[in-house]
Amino acid sequence: MIPEKAKKVFSGVIFDVYQWEQEMYDGSVEIFEKLDRPDTVEIIMTTPEGKLLIQRQQQPDHDEWFLCVSGGRMDKGEKPIESAKREMLEETGCTSDDWELLDTYCGSSKINWDLYVYVARNCKRILEQELDVGERIELMEVTFDEFIQMVDSKQINRIAESIREWCIRASYDKTKYNELKQKIYGG
Amino acid sequence: MIPEKAKKVFSGVIFDVYQWEQEMYDGSVEIFEKLDRPDTVEIIMTTPEGKLLIQRQQQPDHDEWFLCVSGGRMDKGEKPIESAKREMLEETGCTSDDWELLDTYCGSSKINWDLYVYVARNCKRILEQELDVGERIELMEVTFDEFIQMVDSKQINRIAESIREWCIRASYDKTKYNELKQKIYGG
Repeated sequence: MIPEKAKKVFSGVIFDVYQWEQEMYDGSVEIFEKLDRPDTVEIIMTTPEGKLLIQRQQQPDHDEWFLCVSGGRMDKGEKPIESAKREMLEETGCTSDDWELLDTYCGSSKINWDLYVYVARNCKRILEQELDVGERIELMEVTFDEFIQMVDSKQINRIAESIREWCIRASYDKTKYNELKQKIYGG
Repeated sequence: MIPEKAKKVFSGVIFDVYQWEQEMYDGSVEIFEKLDRPDTVEIIMTTPEGKLLIQRQQQPDHDEWFLCVSGGRMDKGEKPIESAKREMLEETGCTSDDWELLDTYCGSSKINWDLYVYVARNCKRILEQELDVGERIELMEVTFDEFIQMVDSKQINRIAESIREWCIRASYDKTKYNELKQKIYGG
């Protein structure tokens, strides 16, 4: 999405900035700019009892807690599934042997950023959380119906747009509801 | 959203990068980073005949045409409504004397970026388009129902998430359909 001829003009902690000379429709040239950032993963976790495991999270630059699902940025050289397993283990102490990629979602037209949405089924707690110094995370179990309602109403407000869209459709349409249930619980 | 103590470490064509030292939960310090970019406007245009005016647009760094509504970046010092009137006039040659702000929408947690969604009712063509050298824009009239279906199905794929959400809800729920109709046509 960033053209090969683009030059990296800034390297940041998260964002790198690329610029290139773009020929316009009248033959003139303008500087175009796009960003590159690490891809991210989000994980919808189910428990052996059929609940979904979500998070109440606080970050050092925000006082307010917010609700979200497990996830985070991919490290350099990591594959998406490796990041998902690592983030879930660090944030929740859980593992799963039933993973599925639900969706890949492209962040924005000006930012080179893919978001991978996984489901991890029958998650089992095998370790304590191992939180980053920039994370405060409490785990919460909710039912499938509570999850849909919390995403639909934006109580869970940091979540991939595609999950949000599925939940909105599921709240109106029984077929979409069943499809989403099947995506999440499999089988 | 960007803390006052943050320093601008890069000024780009669109994006400026800010960094600051953030104290973490264990007292250690890490460099945090956020972006600032110009706010943008989007305009849902209605015609005297009750149609909606959308765009087929191409940009110099993409071969594919895409469907969207009128809009663009705010210039420095412009108020949102001034940008909306300017962009609509440039892109479509139209004016309206019935404007309403439908929604303000915050882009992302890491980017300081607001998106203002306006409706401009009973738009009248008073000039030729005055396109930027980086724009190819063809205008299309669609009905309200076609608009909802095109946003719902992502044929119109560059549009504020909030408009997309309204259209999805309207496609399932008659009450939401009527609410959206009332928002767009007023009265």
